[in-house]
Amino acid sequence: MPTASTVCYIDFEPLGRRVPCRVGVDLLTIAREAGIGLVALCGGVGTCGRCRVRILEGAVSPLSETERRVLGKDADSGLRLACQTVVLGHAKVYIPPTSLTTRQRTQVEGQGVEFALQPPVKLLEGQLQEPTITDLRADAERLREALVGQGVSAASFDIAVLRGLSDALRRDAWTYRAAVRNQEVVALLGPERPCLGLAVDLGTTKVAAYLVDMLSGATLAAEGMMNPQISYGEDVMARIAYAIGGAEKARQLQQAIVLSLNELALTLCKQVGAHPSDIVEAVVVGNTAMHHLFLGLPVWQLGNAPYLATTSHALDIKARDLGLNLAPGAYVHLLPIIAGFVGADHVAMILATGLYQARATTLALDIGTNTEIALCHEGRLVSCSTASGPAFEGAHITHGMRAAEGAIERVRIENGEVKYETIGGKPPIGICGSGILDAVAQLYRSGILDSRGAMRNSHPRVRESSAGREFVLAPAAETGIGEDIVITRADVGQIQLAKGAIRAGINILLRELGIGAEAIEQFIVAGAFGTYIDIQSAIDIGMFPSLPLERFQQVGNAAGVGARMALLSTPVRKLAIEVAQHAQYLELTNDPRFLEQFTLAMLLGEDGV
Amino acid sequence: MPTASTVCYIDFEPLGRRVPCRVGVDLLTIAREAGIGLVALCGGVGTCGRCRVRILEGAVSPLSETERRVLGKDADSGLRLACQTVVLGHAKVYIPPTSLTTRQRTQVEGQGVEFALQPPVKLLEGQLQEPTITDLRADAERLREALVGQGVSAASFDIAVLRGLSDALRRDAWTYRAAVRNQEVVALLGPERPCLGLAVDLGTTKVAAYLVDMLSGATLAAEGMMNPQISYGEDVMARIAYAIGGAEKARQLQQAIVLSLNELALTLCKQVGAHPSDIVEAVVVGNTAMHHLFLGLPVWQLGNAPYLATTSHALDIKARDLGLNLAPGAYVHLLPIIAGFVGADHVAMILATGLYQARATTLALDIGTNTEIALCHEGRLVSCSTASGPAFEGAHITHGMRAAEGAIERVRIENGEVKYETIGGKPPIGICGSGILDAVAQLYRSGILDSRGAMRNSHPRVRESSAGREFVLAPAAETGIGEDIVITRADVGQIQLAKGAIRAGINILLRELGIGAEAIEQFIVAGAFGTYIDIQSAIDIGMFPSLPLERFQQVGNAAGVGARMALLSTPVRKLAIEVAQHAQYLELTNDPRFLEQFTLAMLLGEDGV
Repeated sequence: MPTASTVCYIDFEPLGRRVPCRVGVDLLTIAREAGIGLVALCGGVGTCGRCRVRILEGAVSPLSETERRVLGKDADSGLRLACQTVVLGHAKVYIPPTSLTTRQRTQVEGQGVEFALQPPVKLLEGQLQEPTITDLRADAERLREALVGQGVSAASFDIAVLRGLSDALRRDAWTYRAAVRNQEVVALLGPERPCLGLAVDLGTTKVAAYLVDMLSGATLAAEGMMNPQISYGEDVMARIAYAIGGAEKARQLQQAIVLSLNELALTLCKQVGAHPSDIVEAVVVGNTAMHHLFLGLPVWQLGNAPYLATTSHALDIKARDLGLNLAPGAYVHLLPIIAGFVGADHVAMILATGLYQARATTLALDIGTNTEIALCHEGRLVSCSTASGPAFEGAHITHGMRAAEGAIERVRIENGEVKYETIGGKPPIGICGSGILDAVAQLYRSGILDSRGAMRNSHPRVRESSAGREFVLAPAAETGIGEDIVITRADVGQIQLAKGAIRAGINILLRELGIGAEAIEQFIVAGAFGTYIDIQSAIDIGMFPSLPLERFQQVGNAAGVGARMALLSTPVRKLAIEVAQHAQYLELTNDPRFLEQFTLAMLLGEDGV
Repeated sequence: MPTASTVCYIDFEPLGRRVPCRVGVDLLTIAREAGIGLVALCGGVGTCGRCRVRILEGAVSPLSETERRVLGKDADSGLRLACQTVVLGHAKVYIPPTSLTTRQRTQVEGQGVEFALQPPVKLLEGQLQEPTITDLRADAERLREALVGQGVSAASFDIAVLRGLSDALRRDAWTYRAAVRNQEVVALLGPERPCLGLAVDLGTTKVAAYLVDMLSGATLAAEGMMNPQISYGEDVMARIAYAIGGAEKARQLQQAIVLSLNELALTLCKQVGAHPSDIVEAVVVGNTAMHHLFLGLPVWQLGNAPYLATTSHALDIKARDLGLNLAPGAYVHLLPIIAGFVGADHVAMILATGLYQARATTLALDIGTNTEIALCHEGRLVSCSTASGPAFEGAHITHGMRAAEGAIERVRIENGEVKYETIGGKPPIGICGSGILDAVAQLYRSGILDSRGAMRNSHPRVRESSAGREFVLAPAAETGIGEDIVITRADVGQIQLAKGAIRAGINILLRELGIGAEAIEQFIVAGAFGTYIDIQSAIDIGMFPSLPLERFQQVGNAAGVGARMALLSTPVRKLAIEVAQHAQYLELTNDPRFLEQFTLAMLLGEDGV
């Protein structure tokens, strides 16, 4: 539900997000406030020219001189700079993919990591001599010898490629475009086909997939979806429990994600006029449980101490052996994992943030049901995983919900007045993670909560219920569910558990490296949830240490960026192996310091520990 | 139907062959005459002790002193030497696998080739340290490090092996028995499981499969069956024509052979108390069309000039990618092929006969619908394939049939009297290849046929029919089909075509190497049909050159022997690649000499050309 000061909406396409805003505000600010990552290397002063958008409908300020200078002839085609375009009323705005990608978002925050575009699959093209009665070489040998002439030392052929070889060579008049991986031909692409790669960040809750041009490195399309395994269990442990129920159930989980990835690949390809058979390589990253479930590996041993993975090395597996329908001989590369609860997504995040090679003391974390944290200081890299629970995904919270339309995502209590924003500007139907974080922080700052999380009866919206005190965030009249949306003492407790686990993990890493929180020069918050939270709120309740705000960077889906880097770069894959081998893993369940730290860190308040 | 002089039968088990014989003849001679390959390295004089059999029923000569000396205490368990055991009446005789295998048959003929037992799959065993909270290596890494300690430089795991790894290690109390191929773990065998290999000779008509112990090299079981693709076409060209009819039809052919191989593997394993999942490696050899159909490769280009294979190199393909159910990560190795009509079976024959390294001038051929011939002289090896047609398989012959019960397999005309023998001693129902060869040779020697194949009216059994003259081989009263079994002028013509093609191929190879037929020091006749034919008959009609009989060797299924050698020996696989690369292939359809040679070679008569 829009607040009183909202006078119009902006519809952002192709995202399908409707964002409430005030007249006179520029589009970049509106997009940022809504958590939409627009590229703006210059910080929004109209010089970098990256935040290009197209106005589809509605009233905005006229084209400025700045825009005309920066955009050149693109201005004539209707493009605008979001930072220079001021809203005058309702409008519909199209954001081109180049202005809006997670990778670009990373660059916004100055975390764009340079890497060598050196894909593991090369495209070799040429023309063969037609066979004659004096040149009876078999088709594969004819092509093999041509490829050897192009520097492939001993070309071999995937059996599925072999099956299509004789027809393809004759169809294409003995020209060839061979996708060669190491020394193996994994696909023969037709004359006009693109050479594509697929990068997937396989999260417990969400799956993000990126279609990449393997030759230029450009991200051509991106698409997200819910992990369909959710219907078998909300969190990692629930899915492990389900999979342990029998081989058939484990297969269900594997099939569910494979079917979805096939659909995602098809959807992405359709967006660019391609076909999944044009995808010659894929990289999939995920936490260790998602990694194992996707590969059809057993997970029961991940659910029991000492929480061992079946395998931790980097893997190259034929897509068909996993049920993925890509190019005939395509491989899926899986980055190495560090430990049972520090997976390939963590390695990908380390790659994407440049953490491994960071000169400054840098902490990076990705908040989820399990929060993985890595700290790099003077050449040492230490990681841990901490069970922060599903509270930030809305679970175990009275009116908790996922970040979907109608979720309260921002809360402010100013002079006793409660204000909130919802996703899509709809009447509130619940509270998502960033909303509950804000709410607890604001209740604490307003003195309604004390440091132990107890609720004082100091505000008209505090009331008694059968389960103790609760705070009415949105009265029934305002909500879309016909009842009050409240925050209970128990909800506060859930947030205390979550933030306590995260802060305890941070503190133990700091102690392991013998430094204090103030030594952290860069504090990188990765992941979807981390992107939407208010850093000040996280500091206010003591989830993050009290550092100057400029040291924090919210970099979006760093795991997805790392996956794309690995897709495009053999050196990045080697670096990943090095990271996994050299990263030190702290198993917190064995760490005697953890319980003590955790107990202290559950207290609310800035650096309350 | 037994001839007048036959007084009893011997039932050979487990072959299920009933062989007519005369009292007073030894079992080795009887078996040999019936084409049953019993091992007798000493030539049947009772010294090598290899032709062991067990008398299940019936009357035979008593145990001799020779047998007692050679057999030792085995004599007490009822074993006998076939060469020393004389038949006194009907009997049932069991031939143990060790006395009867194709490989042994090869050895009978002195063609046993020495090769290094150096299997591509090694079995590495050991005991792992159990994980502890201070040793959290993933299961695969724990095993990998142990294998590296055993000399595997960088062990990787097949994905299907990975899927079973965590359970297997815990089930077996952290002991392991890993089947490692190159650097890949293709199977984890349980504590008591054998480590097996499967060798398959995939013929157009028959399939022979051998179960081999990969550690000792011993052949544990052997089994044959008809190629189930026969129901889609009798010969190679018919199957190619069928496969061209559409992708679904090609898949039917592939599925038919794969299902049968899965059944064969299961049957073989049951015989030795094993399971197909114990089979860690397979080798399949066949002619180029069978090779391509088995792999699911297209064959239309094999059916059209210039008869190109899709691929000719040696291949290693995951069994699962072909639909074979073996050990989780097992590979199928395919020997290289030489050309469109000189396939991997020919390479296997060259390996098994030692032809490639022969010092003597040696010719080897395998007679079939296509007859592949190789000639080795002074370090050069030249091969060709000649379209001898299906006449020797009984096709296109008035009363032709396959070599099955009731087929006339031997014919003699002595002083005008016609004698014949049938398979299984049953009343005749047709004539198989060796019978028709004998018949034409005997008709020619008796002057009933002239060298052009014309039939003279010089024997009471020659008669006129609407299609020309014909010879009554068995009058209706003797047959099992209620009609005369005859040989017509047209039948003789089919044999002339077949033998002409074979002899023309031999002659062109001789000319290519600039030598005469008399220079051939060894003439090796391989393959099932070649084993059963009467060499003298083949000489009489001019199919083979007139050489002293002792230069001929009938070596049985040499392709199957070659497949087993390749299964057990990496050096043999390398040698096969060398053979395929260095063998010179003569494409007869392009050879201007062929038609001339063929026309001459169609004439009947010893070296009539």
